[in-house]
Amino acid sequence: MSAEMAEQPARLAALLGQADAIASRLREVLPEPLAGTVLIARGSSDHAATTGRYLLELATRRPVASASPSLYTMYGAQTDFTGFLVVAASQSGRTPEIVRSLQLARSRGGYTVAITNDRKSPLALAAELPVHLDVGIERAVPATKTVTAELVAFGLLAQAVRDIGFGPQVREQLSGQVAAVLDDPGPAGEVAGWLAGRTRLAAVARGLLYGAAGEAALKIEETTSLFATAYSAADLRHGPIAIATTGLPVLAFAHPGPAAADVADLARDLRHRGADVRLAGPVDGSALPWPAAAPEVAAPVLAVVRAQQVALALARRLGRDPDEPGGLNKVTVT
Amino acid sequence: MSAEMAEQPARLAALLGQADAIASRLREVLPEPLAGTVLIARGSSDHAATTGRYLLELATRRPVASASPSLYTMYGAQTDFTGFLVVAASQSGRTPEIVRSLQLARSRGGYTVAITNDRKSPLALAAELPVHLDVGIERAVPATKTVTAELVAFGLLAQAVRDIGFGPQVREQLSGQVAAVLDDPGPAGEVAGWLAGRTRLAAVARGLLYGAAGEAALKIEETTSLFATAYSAADLRHGPIAIATTGLPVLAFAHPGPAAADVADLARDLRHRGADVRLAGPVDGSALPWPAAAPEVAAPVLAVVRAQQVALALARRLGRDPDEPGGLNKVTVT
Repeated sequence: MSAEMAEQPARLAALLGQADAIASRLREVLPEPLAGTVLIARGSSDHAATTGRYLLELATRRPVASASPSLYTMYGAQTDFTGFLVVAASQSGRTPEIVRSLQLARSRGGYTVAITNDRKSPLALAAELPVHLDVGIERAVPATKTVTAELVAFGLLAQAVRDIGFGPQVREQLSGQVAAVLDDPGPAGEVAGWLAGRTRLAAVARGLLYGAAGEAALKIEETTSLFATAYSAADLRHGPIAIATTGLPVLAFAHPGPAAADVADLARDLRHRGADVRLAGPVDGSALPWPAAAPEVAAPVLAVVRAQQVALALARRLGRDPDEPGGLNKVTVT
Repeated sequence: MSAEMAEQPARLAALLGQADAIASRLREVLPEPLAGTVLIARGSSDHAATTGRYLLELATRRPVASASPSLYTMYGAQTDFTGFLVVAASQSGRTPEIVRSLQLARSRGGYTVAITNDRKSPLALAAELPVHLDVGIERAVPATKTVTAELVAFGLLAQAVRDIGFGPQVREQLSGQVAAVLDDPGPAGEVAGWLAGRTRLAAVARGLLYGAAGEAALKIEETTSLFATAYSAADLRHGPIAIATTGLPVLAFAHPGPAAADVADLARDLRHRGADVRLAGPVDGSALPWPAAAPEVAAPVLAVVRAQQVALALARRLGRDPDEPGGLNKVTVT
């Protein structure tokens, strides 16, 4: 896990270098008019897709849906995908329900894109436009470099449709910003110390960083068996905020931008109710900063790298093997 | 909360009696061809919408998306909703971001439906087709009768488009099945006893019951401050299953149907890993049964009533006031 995390600056730079090639291929084949977009993913890839969901709706200006694969694999839904862009993401490209869902969407009129890390995988072969992450084999069970690469891939696809602020200058700086975070593991070690001995964690964010909060919760959960859940700041206020009174540890992700004030307000409210809140991001009082120079569209990548560091540091502190958490497999059959 | 739960058979019967009126109004105005559907909701209403998402995609045979309101209220997304059915659900009809999102969707070409419990609410007034739950004022902070009514409303909307198995015979039996569950509080008391003293709970389901698992987690969390999270059975296998080893309490929802075997397999696997699993539904070894005669499309209503009973019984056992959990408001501003 540690070695694969360290590869990220170089691997992401290589993928970012494919921006023009990916953009021209997508623009050639995007349905016109576009009905909407459907995303198909599970686990860490689904957290990357959650960020992709925001970026692609901003770019395409048509609704974006997250698929419920069981509709296709169990309930026999006769969904017609005509006019839809359908993007599946899976590092292995081998999760059967993801492959079947993409094949079905293609056979029913969808224009299909597969984001995978295996050029020969069934998913890559099933799609009209395969987007190859090409970050090298990922051996550790907790996905790291493939997740940040998927985030980059979604950014490239969205930017190919319309300028969402993930242009050449931003892309050129991103791998250096990832390297800067990796070169500064101290804050993550401190956060791991704060979490040691806890059994629960809520990760909170809003908007573009919500997917990163989901990935942070999953990464910490799978490497340390701490019960971690991500909440949208808005959803947390609809009931779950009741748990703040129990001294719940909360890691709140924010980046300067439209959603930052809402997360800051929520953090204050949670503290007032008794939660033990730490902030992540380039904001005042942050326990887990990343470069403020990055725009919010690039911030999910930096937030996820920070979460990887916390998961790794906490696993080590707890004497666990972060590369092979008990009983997990690299390809999940559901 | 208890009194409002007890009203459900009569209130739901009245709403079910509106089936033909709602169906004919929806059929008059449904976009043709339909691009897809967008659902807008938060909190308990969003859990009802999650079930609605499955039912509406089965019925409309076009993709269904769950809106991310921050795209519209914070990020200025220029989404074009032409050709989309847009359904917002909010018991109060007054959550500002839900009202604004629906208004925006209507102004940008969407055909709008508002499911609310207040005929004069801004949300009801903003939509082309208001669906009035008319279940009477809900005073307890934890939503109960409005949530099961929203589930029924989504079933009626879906059935109006195509037969999904929520026809007259099923509808006639549903309020009696709800009454039968309410008349049998014993199993919920037992499950509350099992949960007393715990700090965490995972609610698990797949497919049509996934929204009910989400609502179960929320209801228990807001009334008892127990940290409860819902997982899709498929997502749980992608990493979070690592937490089973910690003796985590898991409540697994299943109803005879396409997803039942998957949930049963997962329950066995979770037990094998060390989790403390209880089953809910009309399945072998269930701790929280409901009538097996109901079809799976009606089961979410029964599952949610069971979850209400557990939340109420556990709150009482913990000496909490279920009607006014600390610091929560009935209308949430985000």
